[in-house]
Amino acid sequence: MEQDPGLSVLGVTGLPEVSPGDDLAGMIGRGVRLRSGDVVVVTQKIVSKAEGRIVAVDPADGQSRVAVAEQEAVRVLRRRGELLITETPHGFVCANSGVDHSNIAAGYAALLPVDSDRSARRIRDGLRASTGVEVAVIVSDTFGRAWRNGVTDVAIGSAGIRPIVDLRGTADVFGRTLVATEICVVDEIAAAAELVMGKTASVPVAVVRGVDPSWFGEGSVVGDVVRSPAEDLFR
Amino acid sequence: MEQDPGLSVLGVTGLPEVSPGDDLAGMIGRGVRLRSGDVVVVTQKIVSKAEGRIVAVDPADGQSRVAVAEQEAVRVLRRRGELLITETPHGFVCANSGVDHSNIAAGYAALLPVDSDRSARRIRDGLRASTGVEVAVIVSDTFGRAWRNGVTDVAIGSAGIRPIVDLRGTADVFGRTLVATEICVVDEIAAAAELVMGKTASVPVAVVRGVDPSWFGEGSVVGDVVRSPAEDLFR
Repeated sequence: MEQDPGLSVLGVTGLPEVSPGDDLAGMIGRGVRLRSGDVVVVTQKIVSKAEGRIVAVDPADGQSRVAVAEQEAVRVLRRRGELLITETPHGFVCANSGVDHSNIAAGYAALLPVDSDRSARRIRDGLRASTGVEVAVIVSDTFGRAWRNGVTDVAIGSAGIRPIVDLRGTADVFGRTLVATEICVVDEIAAAAELVMGKTASVPVAVVRGVDPSWFGEGSVVGDVVRSPAEDLFR
Repeated sequence: MEQDPGLSVLGVTGLPEVSPGDDLAGMIGRGVRLRSGDVVVVTQKIVSKAEGRIVAVDPADGQSRVAVAEQEAVRVLRRRGELLITETPHGFVCANSGVDHSNIAAGYAALLPVDSDRSARRIRDGLRASTGVEVAVIVSDTFGRAWRNGVTDVAIGSAGIRPIVDLRGTADVFGRTLVATEICVVDEIAAAAELVMGKTASVPVAVVRGVDPSWFGEGSVVGDVVRSPAEDLFR
């Protein structure tokens, strides 16, 4: 019996509170010693704050929350009271267009980054410039799902990693070819990162170390992971 | 700056090929040195094999595949050629009722365990008996999702861990209460495990070490994670 060397997931704590205009890559590069091949997972919340994607919302007014969610949507798929399931301009299907009212000053809400893959690329470029290390970056957010209770973290942006790894055509141990095993590794990495982020409210960044190096490469979440409405059996 | 101690994900390799009637817990207990608080993730494939959930299917006959998927379903939600999206007796919504034709001898298919939470409990009890160590166990499978391309691993059975950790009422860093953050940690742990299982075809078990001890406890995937059709906005 052997054991795979495996992977590790490290939460990065002690980052300062993020404000509009902050240099996230610089803060992360100073907060953790990165190695080549690391995947740095950054929660949407601090990306949105750094990018100034903050709006004022009356905390006591549910209708004002709904209005912001509607503004940020290209389509409302379902509506149940103040819960909207919407499609965002990126193509994400999520609750209330991803507008987030927690871990932000009262009276404000954080909107999704305008171009979440670009956000990931900027952080990756900044980390390369400040640390000299080549990493992949995933911007993560917490989404609900159809059919299953509970939320999980998924990728809303990525850079330096192929979001979906295609194992079609890889021979299985019985020698036949596999079918339909396009694994969304960026969502799985975001989920793994959440397991250390969830421990305390102040872990907005995690490093996933030991990811298969063959997964590094080009691609984007919006281009590769978002399913077009025409191909979707549930829209 | 500090760093969270984090968690590690170890793939267990070198397990023998599994046959009906095999003692999975014994095989796993001999294959890896477990520690108290580990979460052992076991892929559905070897659980189904050990439980004899294997049927003969003509590999050249697509209609025979469809017939098995229909047999294993309580409801067919969508149909596109030979792809069925079905609801299983457990309540899972997945492709072709989870019937699996890869990594099994030609002419055979693996069906989902009849009671996947019971499967997890049996492995957990067996590991406690053979190693004396208290672990949690998750049985995982690879499912597609609505709205997003690519598959990810999710939990279809669990034992010794609360499937959904409710952070509602936990104060966020700004002191207000969080809403709607019931995190499905068993799905996130299954996803993390897949990241080492996907590396080679012969890693059917992974150990996730360092999970928040407060998550250990009672619950089941079918009872806690499966959303009832009445509460589901997309069925």
